[in-house]
Amino acid sequence: MEQNFIDIAKKAKQASLAISGLQTEVKNLALNKVADALECSAEEIFNANKTDLAEAQALVTSGEITKSTFNRLKLDENKMRDMIQGVRDIAKLDDPIGKVLLKRELDEGLILTKVSCPIGVLGIIFEARPDVISQISALAIKSSNAVILKGGKESKNTNKKILEIINNTLSNIENFPKNLIQQVFSRDDVAQMLKCDNYINLIIPRGGNKLVKYIKENTNIPVLGHASGICHIFVDKSADINVASKVVIDAKTQYPSACNAVETLLIHKDLEKSDELLASLQLSEIKLVSNPEAWDVEYGDKILSYKFVNSLEEAIEHINTYGSGHTDSIITNDVENAEKFMNEVDSAGVYYNVSTRFADGFRYGFGAEVGISTNKTHARGPVGLEGLTIYKYKLTGNGHIVDDYSKGKKKFHHRDLK
Amino acid sequence: MEQNFIDIAKKAKQASLAISGLQTEVKNLALNKVADALECSAEEIFNANKTDLAEAQALVTSGEITKSTFNRLKLDENKMRDMIQGVRDIAKLDDPIGKVLLKRELDEGLILTKVSCPIGVLGIIFEARPDVISQISALAIKSSNAVILKGGKESKNTNKKILEIINNTLSNIENFPKNLIQQVFSRDDVAQMLKCDNYINLIIPRGGNKLVKYIKENTNIPVLGHASGICHIFVDKSADINVASKVVIDAKTQYPSACNAVETLLIHKDLEKSDELLASLQLSEIKLVSNPEAWDVEYGDKILSYKFVNSLEEAIEHINTYGSGHTDSIITNDVENAEKFMNEVDSAGVYYNVSTRFADGFRYGFGAEVGISTNKTHARGPVGLEGLTIYKYKLTGNGHIVDDYSKGKKKFHHRDLK
Repeated sequence: MEQNFIDIAKKAKQASLAISGLQTEVKNLALNKVADALECSAEEIFNANKTDLAEAQALVTSGEITKSTFNRLKLDENKMRDMIQGVRDIAKLDDPIGKVLLKRELDEGLILTKVSCPIGVLGIIFEARPDVISQISALAIKSSNAVILKGGKESKNTNKKILEIINNTLSNIENFPKNLIQQVFSRDDVAQMLKCDNYINLIIPRGGNKLVKYIKENTNIPVLGHASGICHIFVDKSADINVASKVVIDAKTQYPSACNAVETLLIHKDLEKSDELLASLQLSEIKLVSNPEAWDVEYGDKILSYKFVNSLEEAIEHINTYGSGHTDSIITNDVENAEKFMNEVDSAGVYYNVSTRFADGFRYGFGAEVGISTNKTHARGPVGLEGLTIYKYKLTGNGHIVDDYSKGKKKFHHRDLK
Repeated sequence: MEQNFIDIAKKAKQASLAISGLQTEVKNLALNKVADALECSAEEIFNANKTDLAEAQALVTSGEITKSTFNRLKLDENKMRDMIQGVRDIAKLDDPIGKVLLKRELDEGLILTKVSCPIGVLGIIFEARPDVISQISALAIKSSNAVILKGGKESKNTNKKILEIINNTLSNIENFPKNLIQQVFSRDDVAQMLKCDNYINLIIPRGGNKLVKYIKENTNIPVLGHASGICHIFVDKSADINVASKVVIDAKTQYPSACNAVETLLIHKDLEKSDELLASLQLSEIKLVSNPEAWDVEYGDKILSYKFVNSLEEAIEHINTYGSGHTDSIITNDVENAEKFMNEVDSAGVYYNVSTRFADGFRYGFGAEVGISTNKTHARGPVGLEGLTIYKYKLTGNGHIVDDYSKGKKKFHHRDLK
């Protein structure tokens, strides 16, 4: 029996209200029990995954899905171990909820407290990566948010099995709210999710450019993510050629399909030995393109557009015009140029003599990553658990009224408290 | 000659990039010069306002605009003084840009810094209140954001005059970017603004419910604001009847058309002397409605819906169902009930023995108010200058590459720096 999407969304809202006051210890207990259960049921999960893989194999043969989708779909012992460890790691992180962000005495006995709290209901839309289910479920539990998951149809059996194990575990934990993590399956559910701004507070797409772009264009609900990763490296006139070569090779070849891989190399026209630099890149099997079809192509491969620019200013303008606001790096020995670059490039990450590949929540030390955002509001760059929180203001007094202040009988003194 | 909206948006984007590095002193100088210029040109502004008022008078007579719109449109000496003082006050506030929010050594020589920065381009849509122009312009200058303003057509002459004075002043300040503050006038411009997510990063509507609702429903750009203010007061069983009466009277009568005025009173069925409470409200000329057409009506007048509830839980559920997530208060002598109420009511402001009218940026001590937000992302409740900022991550190193870490040659140590 398929449920109506609005009913699912209402249940999620209820669950989000119910979990908002849940203690840290209960959440951590739940996370560790979920990890244990996944460990115990690994065999069942592999079996469900085999069913998905068998169906997907036929689709690869017929050309309906790519080989790389097939690979992402496949769970092996390593992925399973990482998946389970990921849940345990989230249990170890600080609780992002209930943090006092500000405490201020507005007047005698009138105390304002700004406290971090959950956002509410998250809508997660992802493609064929079944490990996302446990990761997002764990992040949701830790941050006290409800989630509605919509995975790729290719991983339907695996997704169902994993969520069944998670929800069976949660249902045995005292005081743990029902329906915190729900799953939907159809395209129609996605369409309804995107319209459901009464109940869903944040959409997080995990997938390719097309998916993210489609979602961003079709909802009024805030979306946390990035459609593309057009990252640049600008090699300034004064750059150390060895640093430039090493950083560009890392940024292009270490994992070419990552969103933080470099796509465009900008070189100052007065850089000496620029041909040495280019030759070193070719030696690392990077295909150089001097006249690309467009300057905002994400190759996802060992291909690199490059261009000579007349000045730092031209490099900055190129990046602000064609970049995606993700991560851009300058290679230079001129501190002033580096400062100017980092101030004026309008991207989530602005780097100086460093590979763009460092743009990652784990590398930044966040302990968990919700995703990477190119948004200009709420959360930008690699987003940790904090990105799944907002705050509320608590105000306590003993019969305080505004009239006393507007008539001048009383005055605010706004004294911050520890 | 009317400009194409996209050209205006592009210029705004350029201006936003140009101002992002502007020094605090230059911004404060600009603000004080703007205040001086408005003071010197008060006569010109009053004259422009008289032209608007004459046209509006005819529309009041024909019923096309309300008397209260007419009053909001009218600038008098007091409003002018407040308007100018508002600009000077913003000059005195801390610069919200360039604050170091986190500084962390990821590894030897690899330093991550999270720094506050402007959002970019703001679209401001407001109704007939010409004082908004100078306020928003001042907030934009201080927070280094570009703005495109669209005011009500009733105040067209006043708006044009005020912005002319502001922009003449800014154009004489060295290094101050052009086109930081631009204005558009037609409905078609609004439609284009709402679609312009390539260039506009945040929309802030300042006006009635209908305007805000329309905007929220018709754009993918993040919107900061609130459509309605359905605020509640719950008088618990253990409430002090005098505190309850005093707080409800303040919350309903001190300024009935404010968004933080109370609309619904919930009373615990076991409260003794509840009839005394109701009688005291009626004595203060509050019209009590026990069977309202709906529980989410914003009266904007001395009218109050009320209802007896069986429990704290029922009160919380009523508020989470019919409220607008703005501000809700409990009157009680039971600390545990107060805590439960403040944790479980899902609103920007959750109050305890205090009038809902305190929900305001100035009363919270923010020094300036961008607006009040019922969003669950980015900024919630009264929003100060901080709400017009986001952050970027700067990462500096000396040739650091990810490959060294993924191969285990190096390890992150993630040490926070002061």
